[in-house]
Amino acid sequence: MEKSSDILTKEQILIATEDTLRRFGVAKSSVTDVAKVLGVSHGTIYRHFKSKAELLEGVTEKWLNEKIIDPLTEICQDSSVLGIPHLKRYIQTLIELKQYYARDDEEMFGMYTRVTEQAADLIDQHIAHIVDQLADIIARGGITVDQPTQLARTLFYATTRFHHPAHAYEWKSPAIEREFSEVWMLLEKGIS
Amino acid sequence: MEKSSDILTKEQILIATEDTLRRFGVAKSSVTDVAKVLGVSHGTIYRHFKSKAELLEGVTEKWLNEKIIDPLTEICQDSSVLGIPHLKRYIQTLIELKQYYARDDEEMFGMYTRVTEQAADLIDQHIAHIVDQLADIIARGGITVDQPTQLARTLFYATTRFHHPAHAYEWKSPAIEREFSEVWMLLEKGIS
Repeated sequence: MEKSSDILTKEQILIATEDTLRRFGVAKSSVTDVAKVLGVSHGTIYRHFKSKAELLEGVTEKWLNEKIIDPLTEICQDSSVLGIPHLKRYIQTLIELKQYYARDDEEMFGMYTRVTEQAADLIDQHIAHIVDQLADIIARGGITVDQPTQLARTLFYATTRFHHPAHAYEWKSPAIEREFSEVWMLLEKGIS
Repeated sequence: MEKSSDILTKEQILIATEDTLRRFGVAKSSVTDVAKVLGVSHGTIYRHFKSKAELLEGVTEKWLNEKIIDPLTEICQDSSVLGIPHLKRYIQTLIELKQYYARDDEEMFGMYTRVTEQAADLIDQHIAHIVDQLADIIARGGITVDQPTQLARTLFYATTRFHHPAHAYEWKSPAIEREFSEVWMLLEKGIS
């Protein structure tokens, strides 16, 4: 009866979950709804994800990787720019992506916001990924600093207001771009 | 019957509201509960505060002024320290106060966190107050800068992660103090 479960991958479950969340909203979607979409029993889903919370984390991780990390990786690997301008382009892209999805993908962004406070490991990993890429840009860009990772983390934390999802309500302010520029200018002076 | 309402001040209502919130929690407290404590009808309360939301804002404003602004005003007026060390002491005190109340006054801090996202005017005023005091410290401290208020705002925003209530869940990390020091050191280098 449940042959399909043998070949049902985590990826397929996550895609079906994202569809379900977009259709019914996060609050009203259940593991059973996802199972129905896939034509399997909810037990099949539980074999891969132990709870609805774990399923939501899985979807958030996939969403973060595709929407935030993938485009940032491209910026990180771009060799047409170096040093501080490279750092600025990376952080500005991070900010633009977060602000774009807060506006244009409210359902998923809302889920990511809630997961941020609950799934510490997932978010720590996401931050570590970004900090590693920033440290890489620092090390390759001829910026003289003892510990590139420490500077990377510091830049990430000092710009929190502009990319952390808890501040999405502040991003509607018309001053937000100018305020980022002012913070960045001070940080830039601190680096050089 | 309601003579007492004539002399019932906003301050008395706010004190009774804070008592009620501490006893029943924010979610379960009603305007009627506050009226009962004061021995007046709820109409009497509504003459001063149009809704429960307005009452909560009033309590938050009073709480912020007493717990955060009053001790910061003392630091601001302290003339035993000047310039960048004065700035650092002020911002560090802001951070310590927020982190202290997040731990030790959860009910009121939780209310403040929710009001932060809803009562833009109240929070804008609170921030303006802090930014004014920082600008005052900058101007008096011989820090050469064209626009003290802009630098003040920038320092406030670049340290958001360490004092904005949405980040309270991150303040439990043992690394949080070191992370603030690292951010501050970079900002300090940017100022001088």
